[in-house]
Amino acid sequence: MAQPQQSEGADGAETGKPPLRVGMVGYAFMGAAHSQGWRTAGRVFDLPLSPALAVLCGRDATAVRAAADRHGWADTETDWRALVERDDVDLVDICTPGDSHAEIAVAALAAGKHVLCEKPLANTVAEAEAMVRAAEEAQEQGRLAMVGFNYRRIPATALARRMVAEGRIGTLRHVRVAYLQDWLVDPAFPLTWRLRREQAGSGSLGDLGAHIVDLAQYLAGEPLAGVSALTETFVRRRPLPTGPTSGLAAVDGVGATGTGQVTVDDAALFTGRFASGALASFEATRYATGRKNALRIELNGEHGSLAFDLERLNELSYHDGTEPGAHAGFRRILVTEPDHPYLDAWWPPGHGLGYEHTFVHQARDLVHAVADGRTPEPSFADGLQVQRVLAAVEESAEKNSLYTSIAT
Amino acid sequence: MAQPQQSEGADGAETGKPPLRVGMVGYAFMGAAHSQGWRTAGRVFDLPLSPALAVLCGRDATAVRAAADRHGWADTETDWRALVERDDVDLVDICTPGDSHAEIAVAALAAGKHVLCEKPLANTVAEAEAMVRAAEEAQEQGRLAMVGFNYRRIPATALARRMVAEGRIGTLRHVRVAYLQDWLVDPAFPLTWRLRREQAGSGSLGDLGAHIVDLAQYLAGEPLAGVSALTETFVRRRPLPTGPTSGLAAVDGVGATGTGQVTVDDAALFTGRFASGALASFEATRYATGRKNALRIELNGEHGSLAFDLERLNELSYHDGTEPGAHAGFRRILVTEPDHPYLDAWWPPGHGLGYEHTFVHQARDLVHAVADGRTPEPSFADGLQVQRVLAAVEESAEKNSLYTSIAT
Amino acid sequence: MAQPQQSEGADGAETGKPPLRVGMVGYAFMGAAHSQGWRTAGRVFDLPLSPALAVLCGRDATAVRAAADRHGWADTETDWRALVERDDVDLVDICTPGDSHAEIAVAALAAGKHVLCEKPLANTVAEAEAMVRAAEEAQEQGRLAMVGFNYRRIPATALARRMVAEGRIGTLRHVRVAYLQDWLVDPAFPLTWRLRREQAGSGSLGDLGAHIVDLAQYLAGEPLAGVSALTETFVRRRPLPTGPTSGLAAVDGVGATGTGQVTVDDAALFTGRFASGALASFEATRYATGRKNALRIELNGEHGSLAFDLERLNELSYHDGTEPGAHAGFRRILVTEPDHPYLDAWWPPGHGLGYEHTFVHQARDLVHAVADGRTPEPSFADGLQVQRVLAAVEESAEKNSLYTSIAT
Amino acid sequence: MAQPQQSEGADGAETGKPPLRVGMVGYAFMGAAHSQGWRTAGRVFDLPLSPALAVLCGRDATAVRAAADRHGWADTETDWRALVERDDVDLVDICTPGDSHAEIAVAALAAGKHVLCEKPLANTVAEAEAMVRAAEEAQEQGRLAMVGFNYRRIPATALARRMVAEGRIGTLRHVRVAYLQDWLVDPAFPLTWRLRREQAGSGSLGDLGAHIVDLAQYLAGEPLAGVSALTETFVRRRPLPTGPTSGLAAVDGVGATGTGQVTVDDAALFTGRFASGALASFEATRYATGRKNALRIELNGEHGSLAFDLERLNELSYHDGTEPGAHAGFRRILVTEPDHPYLDAWWPPGHGLGYEHTFVHQARDLVHAVADGRTPEPSFADGLQVQRVLAAVEESAEKNSLYTSIAT
Repeated sequence: MAQPQQSEGADGAETGKPPLRVGMVGYAFMGAAHSQGWRTAGRVFDLPLSPALAVLCGRDATAVRAAADRHGWADTETDWRALVERDDVDLVDICTPGDSHAEIAVAALAAGKHVLCEKPLANTVAEAEAMVRAAEEAQEQGRLAMVGFNYRRIPATALARRMVAEGRIGTLRHVRVAYLQDWLVDPAFPLTWRLRREQAGSGSLGDLGAHIVDLAQYLAGEPLAGVSALTETFVRRRPLPTGPTSGLAAVDGVGATGTGQVTVDDAALFTGRFASGALASFEATRYATGRKNALRIELNGEHGSLAFDLERLNELSYHDGTEPGAHAGFRRILVTEPDHPYLDAWWPPGHGLGYEHTFVHQARDLVHAVADGRTPEPSFADGLQVQRVLAAVEESAEKNSLYTSIAT
Repeated sequence: MAQPQQSEGADGAETGKPPLRVGMVGYAFMGAAHSQGWRTAGRVFDLPLSPALAVLCGRDATAVRAAADRHGWADTETDWRALVERDDVDLVDICTPGDSHAEIAVAALAAGKHVLCEKPLANTVAEAEAMVRAAEEAQEQGRLAMVGFNYRRIPATALARRMVAEGRIGTLRHVRVAYLQDWLVDPAFPLTWRLRREQAGSGSLGDLGAHIVDLAQYLAGEPLAGVSALTETFVRRRPLPTGPTSGLAAVDGVGATGTGQVTVDDAALFTGRFASGALASFEATRYATGRKNALRIELNGEHGSLAFDLERLNELSYHDGTEPGAHAGFRRILVTEPDHPYLDAWWPPGHGLGYEHTFVHQARDLVHAVADGRTPEPSFADGLQVQRVLAAVEESAEKNSLYTSIAT
Repeated sequence: MAQPQQSEGADGAETGKPPLRVGMVGYAFMGAAHSQGWRTAGRVFDLPLSPALAVLCGRDATAVRAAADRHGWADTETDWRALVERDDVDLVDICTPGDSHAEIAVAALAAGKHVLCEKPLANTVAEAEAMVRAAEEAQEQGRLAMVGFNYRRIPATALARRMVAEGRIGTLRHVRVAYLQDWLVDPAFPLTWRLRREQAGSGSLGDLGAHIVDLAQYLAGEPLAGVSALTETFVRRRPLPTGPTSGLAAVDGVGATGTGQVTVDDAALFTGRFASGALASFEATRYATGRKNALRIELNGEHGSLAFDLERLNELSYHDGTEPGAHAGFRRILVTEPDHPYLDAWWPPGHGLGYEHTFVHQARDLVHAVADGRTPEPSFADGLQVQRVLAAVEESAEKNSLYTSIAT
Repeated sequence: MAQPQQSEGADGAETGKPPLRVGMVGYAFMGAAHSQGWRTAGRVFDLPLSPALAVLCGRDATAVRAAADRHGWADTETDWRALVERDDVDLVDICTPGDSHAEIAVAALAAGKHVLCEKPLANTVAEAEAMVRAAEEAQEQGRLAMVGFNYRRIPATALARRMVAEGRIGTLRHVRVAYLQDWLVDPAFPLTWRLRREQAGSGSLGDLGAHIVDLAQYLAGEPLAGVSALTETFVRRRPLPTGPTSGLAAVDGVGATGTGQVTVDDAALFTGRFASGALASFEATRYATGRKNALRIELNGEHGSLAFDLERLNELSYHDGTEPGAHAGFRRILVTEPDHPYLDAWWPPGHGLGYEHTFVHQARDLVHAVADGRTPEPSFADGLQVQRVLAAVEESAEKNSLYTSIAT
């Protein structure tokens, strides 16, 4: 059994509180972001447990040691199977590509660890179902599992959810969502793992689409009932990288030796209906030139509307339809007030947060759930439901956009 | 043969130029807007013909006389059949609901008049086909026909078209279009003619959808190949008006005596593919609370992007993807410079135009086409093609969103 | 003696109402804008008098005849002294440079005409005082005088005034105003009349500063008490034009033959205090590269704030400080609703107006004032008060920015 | 004598690099922000020294211990004089109110420490001069001193500086700056230390004005030559707090027992001239209802313009005046690209940073300067020069806004 003092050397440990010792698998983009989250959460929020960056796991011993030093992890492992068996790890944080999520998560839960798994939960519905079963069994033993849809943890989106739940926009009519990026516009961009179905599961759909499906359902407070979809791969062959890539960027020194086939979608468009009858429109693409991270969502209800853009993440736009028309208009709420979600612990009004703080908030919420023994949100079941929506999107796209119901 | 001096009493006539004597049918919202267009075009632009507001036609003699006085028309008629036969009318401008477009247009062309017909061209593809045939025959006699997609005549959209044609955004990947209004949000809004299929043909689809289909194809420079669609009527019964309504607004003093069925769509969502393979996303709705006239269109190409919002009609947003990333960004072009379309005749830079000026520009362009004997754009054939897209949308919506090709 | 029917040939006359026969002096930029205003006002609004574009006056007989044909004026004069004596003119509209305003206005009032005079009222306080005296005497004879601060007539600014008057922003703390243009940035721009003190009176101060001083005091509902100022002429010599220029633009074919001295200010900055103690900040410049017509004003009060930008003239930004902080924010009111000022006569919500409609509204308001025998606003006295502020600005600038009280 | 390993227990230490052991005085708002900066800098950037959060100093032993635990500081002191003498501290970071800056900084430099001092450098010019002398002497011993104008370290402002230095906007004409907050709008807000001259030195001037004077001069690349100023205290008496306050916020449970006099300015407006002749306009206020942290700066040059708003800190607005007018416009650069300042170490494009990261970048830059033995920027001399501008503002305000030259 791990001793509290063992975790003192790691970043993030506060004196006098029981530790929550984290073992993380993967240390690329998501690993760096999660490290910031675990390191900062207890410094900003008053948490019941003190997160400790205990063990970082990666296949290359030298590289993982360097990453651990950089990001402040106390120890390292090169085999995730060893990691999940360690007595001095309380929670396994999975930051690998989607094809390994299921295996690691199921093993970690079986080994008695809490689990945080990056999105999408898995590459297939079958994997996700297995993960949900494992999570249900683990919960009987007091082990909890959460999927990392971090965009629920932006103060502006959390505020939007609160306002929808308060009934401020009334009966929902429309949800309009797009996630627009442009990093594939250049046909010379190499064939990284994110463009290969065997690792990534899908392209814009699983990467961007999973985010917006989760966020839309979370904000609406209800599930999608069915979808009609189109997908497209605009550039079908890309240069092969000869060295390592980070998924999102070509690594320096990579020389292309021929081309390979892109086996995922570049863009996915789908429309749908929510359970209540509201209409939804989704677009996920990596070809929207000039749009860098434009996750935009608008909800129109009978009594009001809300709109959000991730490129301006400290703002929420709100139209109160019950006001006199002469003074009504979309207002820009600068979501930095102390009574906004998460913000009582941060800076004075107007001093905005950034992307990485979604991971701080995710860590905070998960620590509370673990301390309280509550199922965290979003749960693995939530992640599975998103996976089912994505599966219906793919099915509809294969069937000439035929409207396809979401399995439940 | 009409004498020039006969038109002198009407607004709009300039001395010393041959007149173009207009007879207009209908004088509600569109009639008022067209009147402004005809009156102003020759005052701002140097035209080869001088438009004269010759005859206004409406069924109620007293009302049409009052409207003629208000809007500056010299004479009136109460029967459109009489109007189209008048020798002192050169051009018939049709501003009635869609169900009468075909009959009036065909008769006017047969009577040797030029025709301007409000959009949508007709309520059905069959009507539109008949109109195209009539227009083709008339053109052999030197009579021209144009459909009134006025949003092509906003300087910002005309500039966007010019930039696309110049190749500034390169191979097209995405076209994203929405036309968002909110005037039906209140379930107590009465059942005006725009909510009845027999007069309006369809709801948001024909009214808003026709605009955005035309604008998207115009800007893309290519036709849609197919669509997948969802439509919805959120509020299925509405109070019956007991008196006249204007289509867009309840008239004072109207008392509801029971309710009637809404027989058109409240909202229409469709995705599609352009001929080149670019993806398209469309949304037309009258239920987007807080959005008053938000026609938004964005085009993403391999080398750049363009975006426009009708609520800020003097602006065009442009991203030049060929610039160094460090200095690139969407720029807001204030489309008020002398070398922007239509603007050499207007005010100094920064002094914006309004909605009604689209009708001034429409009048200007049609006058030039008539003087030159050129087919005006958009032609009746263009209007028919839009009608075919709308028909494919309706067909797809009926077939559970199955992807439906556009007839050619 | 003029007969009502004589004015029927001119644009703007409606049947059955007494005419208001306008004689206008000057037909450049302002003359074109006023023509649109007079022509359109009676077509959109239900006016008690029917404005008629009776006589246009300019020194060059051929040019003024061409302008009259273009803009729809029935007759012409080449001498303003003849114009003001004509029996068939009821109102003289002065659109000349500032150095001739006083002489024409005083003569026109003496001849029993109503007068509309473009801003600034005059080039000096002494001239403006004489004009006020003439206006006071004329008013005893039922003749009215108005100065053309057209930016009070934008629906958004009129709405802002209404909201301030309703107490919605409470005790005023700050008024922040800038009028930013960039047409002098290029040192090769020629020395037009607007850059010569003897004609223009001053530079950015009289042209742009006059607008923002009037607008700020109008919106605040109180006068400035004193100012502290800096002015600057960045480019002190400019090419001489060899042909005619329009003031704002070089005329094609103009060849420079040497340079001349710029004798007005390029930019003027001043701070000040309102009578109530609120602070004010003003900036007028023709050197704000990229800003075309950015008249921006923000008012901060104890209970709320309002902000406006002329480059987006259909919008008013409003912050209601009495709302709960969690939902508060600057809202963008799209000022196109029927209960917004002037808008019951225009288009449906969201269909914006343009710059020229300020002149339509100005004509409307003046026609009502004439019909009612009321002093129009802004009166010549209002114009004089603005002139006194500008004089204090110049005095302060000469005295090393020493705070200078406004004479009353 | 401190051993490197002693610092291992503190946050921020990376293995294998020489430590830079920080002792910080003060742990309120600024202390929390600096803690985040020191903790994160070495985790994100590859630094030559490893910052260690060694000792936190505050007067109340219990409170400082709790703060140290929260923010991750290894040890505590209750007397800053003891702190500056500790052998295991390399750098003293001063986060106290301005009245203690000089004494602590001078002592720390004398004790052989590097110093980072929060802005404003001091409450008086005399204090700042003493600090500069101390810094000059210390530099001879290899000890460096920096003042904490963190807003230079926003990627967008750093990019703006780079673009100005590259000549992209050419000869400067205008700099327009405002720093608008609203936390004093409520007259019931209590009399915290920030409203007392003896502690804060001045009000909006030293707090907000110091930031914008530094930022404007930094971006312009030249100093102000003179200023003309108005200041105002709108609410002259405020409730006395009976317990501790944080400066920016009333503390729960504080009961007012009478009122006290506000002895600082609520707002300060000043205009000025830069050395090159460019004009400047400044406004600092805590009464701009609805503006939370609106530090806005715009620079207009002969060839282009730049604009920035701290409420949207990931964006820089840029107008390239050398482009053809038809395609020119202010572009919104999303400053999140790898070739933007600081951003090669952060997230993919479009994943924005927040306010606190300015402190991360400040720590990074200071660590590099210390490692290289270079004078950090902004130096104490830079801080003194800002202080002289503020003194000139106060002098001008006392002399009825008379233009006052900046001492050099």
